[in-house]
Amino acid sequence: MANEYIDIETLKYLLYDVHELEDVVRQDRFKDHDKESLNMFIDSVKEFSDRELFPYIKEMDEHPAYYEDGKVIVHKQVDVIMKKSGEMGLISGTFDYDAGGLQLPMMVYTASAFIQDAANNHLPGYLGLTIGSAELIVHFGNANLNEIYVPKMLSGAWGGTMCLTEPQAGSSLSDVVTKAIPSDKGHYKISGQKIFISGGDHQYAENMVHLVLARIEGAPQGTKGISLFVVPKKRPDKNGDLTPNDVTTVADFQKMGQRGYCTTHLGFGDKDDCHGWLVGEAHQGLKYMFMMMNAARIAVGRGAAAITMAAYQASLQYAKERPQGRKLASDGKKNPEQGQTLIINHPDVRRMLLLQKAVAEGSLSLVLLASKYFDLKETLQDKDEKEKYGLLLELIIPMVKTYPSEMGAQAVSNGVQVLGGYGFCSDFILQQYHRDIRIFSIYEGTTGIQSQDLLGRKLLMENGKALKLLTNEIMQTIEQASKYDELKKYAAKLGDKLQLAQKVIGFLIGFAQKGDYERFLSDATPFMEFFSNITMGWVWLDIACHSKNALITAQKKYTEEFYESKIHTMKFYFKYELPKTNGLADILMNEEILTIAGEQEVFN
Amino acid sequence: MANEYIDIETLKYLLYDVHELEDVVRQDRFKDHDKESLNMFIDSVKEFSDRELFPYIKEMDEHPAYYEDGKVIVHKQVDVIMKKSGEMGLISGTFDYDAGGLQLPMMVYTASAFIQDAANNHLPGYLGLTIGSAELIVHFGNANLNEIYVPKMLSGAWGGTMCLTEPQAGSSLSDVVTKAIPSDKGHYKISGQKIFISGGDHQYAENMVHLVLARIEGAPQGTKGISLFVVPKKRPDKNGDLTPNDVTTVADFQKMGQRGYCTTHLGFGDKDDCHGWLVGEAHQGLKYMFMMMNAARIAVGRGAAAITMAAYQASLQYAKERPQGRKLASDGKKNPEQGQTLIINHPDVRRMLLLQKAVAEGSLSLVLLASKYFDLKETLQDKDEKEKYGLLLELIIPMVKTYPSEMGAQAVSNGVQVLGGYGFCSDFILQQYHRDIRIFSIYEGTTGIQSQDLLGRKLLMENGKALKLLTNEIMQTIEQASKYDELKKYAAKLGDKLQLAQKVIGFLIGFAQKGDYERFLSDATPFMEFFSNITMGWVWLDIACHSKNALITAQKKYTEEFYESKIHTMKFYFKYELPKTNGLADILMNEEILTIAGEQEVFN
Repeated sequence: MANEYIDIETLKYLLYDVHELEDVVRQDRFKDHDKESLNMFIDSVKEFSDRELFPYIKEMDEHPAYYEDGKVIVHKQVDVIMKKSGEMGLISGTFDYDAGGLQLPMMVYTASAFIQDAANNHLPGYLGLTIGSAELIVHFGNANLNEIYVPKMLSGAWGGTMCLTEPQAGSSLSDVVTKAIPSDKGHYKISGQKIFISGGDHQYAENMVHLVLARIEGAPQGTKGISLFVVPKKRPDKNGDLTPNDVTTVADFQKMGQRGYCTTHLGFGDKDDCHGWLVGEAHQGLKYMFMMMNAARIAVGRGAAAITMAAYQASLQYAKERPQGRKLASDGKKNPEQGQTLIINHPDVRRMLLLQKAVAEGSLSLVLLASKYFDLKETLQDKDEKEKYGLLLELIIPMVKTYPSEMGAQAVSNGVQVLGGYGFCSDFILQQYHRDIRIFSIYEGTTGIQSQDLLGRKLLMENGKALKLLTNEIMQTIEQASKYDELKKYAAKLGDKLQLAQKVIGFLIGFAQKGDYERFLSDATPFMEFFSNITMGWVWLDIACHSKNALITAQKKYTEEFYESKIHTMKFYFKYELPKTNGLADILMNEEILTIAGEQEVFN
Repeated sequence: MANEYIDIETLKYLLYDVHELEDVVRQDRFKDHDKESLNMFIDSVKEFSDRELFPYIKEMDEHPAYYEDGKVIVHKQVDVIMKKSGEMGLISGTFDYDAGGLQLPMMVYTASAFIQDAANNHLPGYLGLTIGSAELIVHFGNANLNEIYVPKMLSGAWGGTMCLTEPQAGSSLSDVVTKAIPSDKGHYKISGQKIFISGGDHQYAENMVHLVLARIEGAPQGTKGISLFVVPKKRPDKNGDLTPNDVTTVADFQKMGQRGYCTTHLGFGDKDDCHGWLVGEAHQGLKYMFMMMNAARIAVGRGAAAITMAAYQASLQYAKERPQGRKLASDGKKNPEQGQTLIINHPDVRRMLLLQKAVAEGSLSLVLLASKYFDLKETLQDKDEKEKYGLLLELIIPMVKTYPSEMGAQAVSNGVQVLGGYGFCSDFILQQYHRDIRIFSIYEGTTGIQSQDLLGRKLLMENGKALKLLTNEIMQTIEQASKYDELKKYAAKLGDKLQLAQKVIGFLIGFAQKGDYERFLSDATPFMEFFSNITMGWVWLDIACHSKNALITAQKKYTEEFYESKIHTMKFYFKYELPKTNGLADILMNEEILTIAGEQEVFN
């Protein structure tokens, strides 16, 4: 197994140089931090991940979480990382000082969680969901809930979950039927079933705090009648003693990947004794949940990007060490008397490695960009600027979640292929990454749902204002890149693609204007692929600009080869990935209607 | 788990109507067969697969083959299918009567093996390798080897394998070092290691017959010094008694998929007592092996196509039964008071299902076409016609192996996505198909190797004669389709793509002519994707032509919906798949050199 899982130099380069973390740290909220202290934090996470996460990734796959006698049994390392992460501030990192947090920028949190994800993607979810559910309490819960639950969660003693999905509803939250009946004691009685609850139960958590979407008796149908509740596995009394709260662990789903990260089926109120406490106002649950969704979707993109990075590192190492075959001579023959060459010298292997590099580093850059928008939106004082970054964030979020998940899976599959037969065998880690990453295009809203969000909501949002803002950002990069002879032609290419995007969007919006929403959104997924491909062209051109700029300045932090490799990867992206948009534009502007259900049975 | 794994009507339609099996059966070799008898054979295989293969697919995954005390332990069903297939003629099917076979057309063998693959892809490999190794003996071995080994193999009592790969050589067969030292008793002493030997050992085989590539002492270096040997696990004496032959089972590779199909590491001659018998002439081993390779590569494409078909059936069934979400109203909203709709009514789900249908049925059509070329090449009397189909077969073989493997994996991944979270869980079969199919782009020459074969050898073969022949075939279909108003525009589109292909090929060949073979072949894999995409456009246009023709004739074997669904799927392919060639042509004609190793280190 490869002994390295991350290119930490590239992470720091993207964080500090390309996305200029120091600009963000200048905001008042972050005034106690500086580059040095943040760097120390990141280094400590790397060291922690080397020691406590990476060594266990294979064994967590080989010994998956399982269900036994009403409990979920997970690997012992879940215990270690919950407790130690609590001590290190990895759970409370982004929280306010008031809530016991460190007021770290989201950018730094993303960078540190990326390291953990890359080291062992089966573990950080336990932290992530505890963070997300604690945030819901901090933002929307009353003082009492905050006092009882948040400190225990941020210390890692109690776990947290988000309980949305139900068996009969799947992604369609308007069909949630879990019931909440008010009592006269301030709590509600909760009853229902929730499935696919990540990190939903394990033997090491003193308690689990579930943030549950449910419908108060008599509430309106649809998404407007859903409320949010804190439903602990054990309810604490005034002295802090814990009593079982009628939350049952029904099962642990066995999965193809991320097998160390449990996915549970929970039952609430089988014995009519499950207490839940309303968070915020009644019927506002979905709104609250979705205010946390941006962070959750950045986290999914980040996890997928991290697996892609780890797979790239593993296959790169193999390609650098494995001799096989020979280079072609000018007559197209191979000379058997010549020694073998390393497979990294075969063009087809280089193509697969460069694809992995382009997707891994590009995706990382994208999630850092989203985190930067997040920080700016949260901390800037100027109202217009705040709005600007808020809109940019909203627009890119579906791509941040989807591109790393979809293209990451393809990149990892290329990583498997680099190893040939060994890539398919359990002795090597690639096959595990291939299985692990497949869930990411399903988590937190499938690719189909993200795509409808992008095309159906985000592009149209505020009369297309977000799209205009993003276009401006891209235009600025194009302008900057045009100043360098080496980058000029790529800048021009991206400009053409931007025009193509406008044409495609104009064509599609025509359907919405005619009221044909079904047709408007029917090709949302190919549109997602199209639009995120162009967005990634921008991301890479931006990296190339920074690298080119560093090359021509006197003071270089990294080697020339480092910067040249980034420019090379941008060129690779522009040659091998960006042209996909030609075919996608063709699909999107094709008038034929073939995927809308009609009278004809097409699936015989 | 889905209770159906194949669309048998479509299989028969493609076999009898689109590819006109009866034309093939007219050849003298097949004179004892007719449509009725062949149909009975196919139905008996379906019934056998329903009973003995499909019910075990999940449990073979959950209880993989494993190594214990020098032996590989496999599922008991391996025993059942070896013996029963022997009885039913499923092993000997295509062999001459003289060798104990049934002289079935390859088309019928492919159809029947496709059913078995679709039912349970962990099992047919045991048969397939026994067939392949018995064929090598029949074609190239002497009478003695034929007498001793072939009947036992065709009955299913003894298994067979192909031993090519060695640890230090991988795909590079010129580096094979397994040694053969002649003795004065007619046999050779064999010593060496072979890895990734599919079906290499199991507890139910009385004996295993390994066809081993090895180098006779003093043989020339490279591929020209490799000979082929029969090396049994136990050597039979004159009375048929079996003595151990110093063949050791070193290990069973544990894999991500096809876990019931063992993949072994074998050692030969650890105790200097491993006997092997030369097959045919010395130093001709690779040539013999490659004469069997066309059948082996059809088999890989067939297996991948079959998994794609089975995954399509499973996700289609789920989509027809699962209610979730609502159709969009004309204001783009959903009405929560409306009942849920089945997910098959969502355009994005239909798109994913149609992709699966297009890839599954298209791939099946392609492997049947290759089998038809195989039959015609083998049985036609006219020398020119024989040569024609031989060349067509050679040209399409790398695509037959690669397209179903690569696009099948993408189609199956869409099948996983149709089920959402359930697709990733072990309760459903989709996640298994996702794992199973991933090996097919590695088996029998990776996609990279197939792509170099296509571009570097097959296109140039006999001054491009094969390409001209294929182009003629495609032109004929275009001409035919142009006669139908409904198909005209698709015919024109395919004609454009054919011209594009000529342009791309002309551009690439320029590099070969300049002696720059490395550049010529550096984008062989994108070329494979490009060229097989167009070839599949032809395959679908051909299906649509036959369907259209059936619709306008009085006598219809199938329902109108059946034929319409084929035309619909062709349109889907032309809208959603064929446009990929735009971007691929762009990549292939881009002058930039980015994947050839230079002085610059691009992988920092």
